[in-house]
Amino acid sequence: MKQFRAFRRAAIPAVALSLAIGGAFAADAKPDVHEAVAGGKMQASSGPSPVGGIEMVQAINPKSPPMSKDEFEIGKKIYFERCAGCHGVLRKGATGKPLTTDITLDRGSDYLKTFITYGSPGGMPNWGTSGTLTEKEVDIMTRYVQHEPPMPPEYGIKEMEATWKVYVKPEDRPKKKMNDLDLANLFSVTLRDAGKIALIDGASKKIVDIINTGYAVHISRLSKSGRYLFVIGRDAKIVMIDLWMAKPAPVAEIKVGLEARSVETSKFKGFEDKLAIAGTYWPPQYVIMDGDTLKPRKIIGTRGMTSDTNEYHPEPRVAAIVSSHYKPEFLVNAKETGVVHMVNYSDLENLKVTMIKTPRFLHDGGMEASGRYFMDAANASDKIAVIDTKESKLAAVVNVGKTPHPGRGANFVHPKFGPVWATGHLGDETVSLIGTDPKKNPQHAWKVVQTLTAAGGGQLFLKTHPKSKNLWVDAPLNPDPKISQAIAVFDINNLDKGYELLPIGAWAGVKPGAKRVVQPEYNKAGDEVWFSVWSGAGEESAIVVVDDRTRKLKAVIKDPQLITPTGKFNVYNTQNDVY
Amino acid sequence: MKQFRAFRRAAIPAVALSLAIGGAFAADAKPDVHEAVAGGKMQASSGPSPVGGIEMVQAINPKSPPMSKDEFEIGKKIYFERCAGCHGVLRKGATGKPLTTDITLDRGSDYLKTFITYGSPGGMPNWGTSGTLTEKEVDIMTRYVQHEPPMPPEYGIKEMEATWKVYVKPEDRPKKKMNDLDLANLFSVTLRDAGKIALIDGASKKIVDIINTGYAVHISRLSKSGRYLFVIGRDAKIVMIDLWMAKPAPVAEIKVGLEARSVETSKFKGFEDKLAIAGTYWPPQYVIMDGDTLKPRKIIGTRGMTSDTNEYHPEPRVAAIVSSHYKPEFLVNAKETGVVHMVNYSDLENLKVTMIKTPRFLHDGGMEASGRYFMDAANASDKIAVIDTKESKLAAVVNVGKTPHPGRGANFVHPKFGPVWATGHLGDETVSLIGTDPKKNPQHAWKVVQTLTAAGGGQLFLKTHPKSKNLWVDAPLNPDPKISQAIAVFDINNLDKGYELLPIGAWAGVKPGAKRVVQPEYNKAGDEVWFSVWSGAGEESAIVVVDDRTRKLKAVIKDPQLITPTGKFNVYNTQNDVY
Repeated sequence: MKQFRAFRRAAIPAVALSLAIGGAFAADAKPDVHEAVAGGKMQASSGPSPVGGIEMVQAINPKSPPMSKDEFEIGKKIYFERCAGCHGVLRKGATGKPLTTDITLDRGSDYLKTFITYGSPGGMPNWGTSGTLTEKEVDIMTRYVQHEPPMPPEYGIKEMEATWKVYVKPEDRPKKKMNDLDLANLFSVTLRDAGKIALIDGASKKIVDIINTGYAVHISRLSKSGRYLFVIGRDAKIVMIDLWMAKPAPVAEIKVGLEARSVETSKFKGFEDKLAIAGTYWPPQYVIMDGDTLKPRKIIGTRGMTSDTNEYHPEPRVAAIVSSHYKPEFLVNAKETGVVHMVNYSDLENLKVTMIKTPRFLHDGGMEASGRYFMDAANASDKIAVIDTKESKLAAVVNVGKTPHPGRGANFVHPKFGPVWATGHLGDETVSLIGTDPKKNPQHAWKVVQTLTAAGGGQLFLKTHPKSKNLWVDAPLNPDPKISQAIAVFDINNLDKGYELLPIGAWAGVKPGAKRVVQPEYNKAGDEVWFSVWSGAGEESAIVVVDDRTRKLKAVIKDPQLITPTGKFNVYNTQNDVY
Repeated sequence: MKQFRAFRRAAIPAVALSLAIGGAFAADAKPDVHEAVAGGKMQASSGPSPVGGIEMVQAINPKSPPMSKDEFEIGKKIYFERCAGCHGVLRKGATGKPLTTDITLDRGSDYLKTFITYGSPGGMPNWGTSGTLTEKEVDIMTRYVQHEPPMPPEYGIKEMEATWKVYVKPEDRPKKKMNDLDLANLFSVTLRDAGKIALIDGASKKIVDIINTGYAVHISRLSKSGRYLFVIGRDAKIVMIDLWMAKPAPVAEIKVGLEARSVETSKFKGFEDKLAIAGTYWPPQYVIMDGDTLKPRKIIGTRGMTSDTNEYHPEPRVAAIVSSHYKPEFLVNAKETGVVHMVNYSDLENLKVTMIKTPRFLHDGGMEASGRYFMDAANASDKIAVIDTKESKLAAVVNVGKTPHPGRGANFVHPKFGPVWATGHLGDETVSLIGTDPKKNPQHAWKVVQTLTAAGGGQLFLKTHPKSKNLWVDAPLNPDPKISQAIAVFDINNLDKGYELLPIGAWAGVKPGAKRVVQPEYNKAGDEVWFSVWSGAGEESAIVVVDDRTRKLKAVIKDPQLITPTGKFNVYNTQNDVY
């Protein structure tokens, strides 16, 4: 813990990187971590919210200090680049504090200017003294936040359909697989700042295809059959790729909002490949689409009451979505309200939604090994909510470390405590192991049975595989390059021994730069692990493949086209929720 | 039909009354009918939306024509008195057209001024030429609607709890009935403009109690046991009265929002008297409360997508709520979205809501005789949606007359078509009879089996009773006093004979005035029918009681305290959904 505290104290003075990190780690801030990663060095191309570019009405509250239209536009731009991630589009408060005008007008210009210039120990970056904003810009922001927040437009079926394209109709697609690819061991790799994905063959490690997608690709998901690959970018564009084509290519696309993070497909028996769902940050809603064409069918808004204080929140952003194996249901995380929407997709005209009260702010998570329980991180509450997808209710709430960020988490059988699910943390150096077997190990179920100390805070993802004995924990947001450019690996049969730190960044052999090592991903066989060595957009990146048994370097994938690789999604593991 | 068309053409020129009627009947307007009734003569005390008095921020769109703060306040006041009922608080369009600034700025001042001054055949009243608004006021409104709509405040648990009072705790209440009242035959009578209800004994016709409630009481409902009476006013104040007390009196009250219409109680086996629910117009939401204290437990917002066009509506007002007999569910009408929320109240922490897609705009309705199907009026669509409360889905949509307004409707066995449910209409003189027995009369189920011609348009309520052979149809909004002051009564065994028109208004023997005869209500035995003779606030009103068998006058209830009586709720019939 000592190391991490030191890091936190040290974070504020540094300039570029610390702005992202300071926001990401300070106790009261906890922004979306992907925004945090996108800050600093990589901010120019992937940081700002895409909502900032939208035209909005300038609504002037006469109590507010005057500002010109030009100043308002500057303020709006800066707000969506720097502030919206934490404070929310409508400033109602998200992982940052609310900045509605009742509050800002009450605080007044002098207070606000000081706060914006110098930041706060609570997590507000020092925008002025860090040199990020000029004195003039700080002055504009001081006034801007005392004006009513402009409202981005809504985005309904009409707007979605206007962007909807079917490149190849279902009837014109192949009836069987027309290529020789080993689809189950194919990887869909996010090339974040290129706005593309790379399809990489798991055996040969060759790039077999590069496909244009959209701005800052966030994740890839597979249809239940494994045939269709869905990619969503932060600009809310979904591209659907048919992996059966001779050369896999997009067959449909749609833009479902102004900013988004999540896409998923229907997986329940009888509904395989039938439907897709995407959740948006703006507008705060989710949309259910046809699984073969992306035709939008039904939009459901998330605006509503917070689970704990029962007050209206205008902007509950949709974070992770998972697909139930027990019912024809999607589980949709409404972040700011702390509500999991269990959406039954068997009848869209008489739509059943179970709204499960959880702690705030929901972000990401995954299924434990049996597939019955959804382990859902309420990151700002330092808790994991356990949702029983069979009974459609909250099963438990588990206190974990500071700002859990599990990705989908890691499942393995603990030698002492039985089946566990693991999460790492943004806000500290620990990994929490939670017992997940209420039947055979009820005394450990939904309890933290062990807390590991990994290399440091700033963890984004951790991973193991049913056939592996290793637990890999990244820390790409750690300020110490020795940690952010390496991976910590534990032996799950000897966890007390501590971790081994492998210098993945060095193994990549890329030119020096602000590289980070991020997101372990297994191949289908579970005998090798892939890591992204993520450099800036103009720098050399790589994927490093490690032999899971020996923990030795197996391959380095480099290619001029491999620009800012981040998430890697093995088709089989993604399709079957193996993690 | 001829008569009614003539009425519609004639409606616009007249001044006071026509403003209400013109809005209520014209093809494209269809406002909330209670607002319509409240217009004209009775407008001063009960017409304006209570939201108008709330302080809101004046947000100035720089594209809008300038207006001073004083002018803005005048505009706001007039808007909430005259416009919000049809166009919505946020002007997104309700039963009137949308007036968002993208539209109004595009139309421009000249167009808007003409429209406001002269009205339109589509239903917009002629606010200028009628003399209702001065030229200056028309000018203010022309500019006001080109400014961003001010947003009334939200109203969450904290705000509700601040208004919540328990006058007598459950443990301090009587353990058995402490009075000699025949509760089953007691009537709770809305004294609309007095902000009170009268409890009237069904046998003696004596007022046994007058209880202060709140602004413009809208309805009364009973707990399943019949012990607790819930009264809600348009100011969203609920008063809960314990009928077991020696002198029935309020035991709890709460204000659940800024404007409301509906309250209901849990009726499913095992949940009797356990919970209450209230729906609000502003904010657009509903709240579930403890049935013995009104303690607010859970608020659910209705903001979301319209059922047909899948576009966001910021203000889906909650109209009627009914309580299922088949499941622990409330059925909540979200008017502007055309969504019935079936809310399962058995687990508030993991709340199941089935969102049933229906036509817009949902208003009122009731159960057919078996209690399984909810007959739900989508008034602006001229349709009745049939909701199967057992299967939790839409069973059918039935086309009926112009702007159905069933109240809860009327159930009887038609000599030819079997069980039917009847609705009257605001917009024409017809009564539609819909077959409701899919088991034994499947060929008639969910079809209009017969259309009756009643005395005229402007119907609000119709009623019969399982023991009666009469169907009573009021028409208080008809412009012809001969009709609005009378009641049409049909013999349900000889419907083809047509109606008999009884001059209830004349029978009341009250001083001349703009009285209307409204809302037939049966006593428990089903052998007498009560009618409100509703005059203005300063005028003499009465309740007229008619012998159901002979159709002769049985009694007139007059009392100086009986100010503007409207709804009358017989305890037994309300408690058991007998209508």
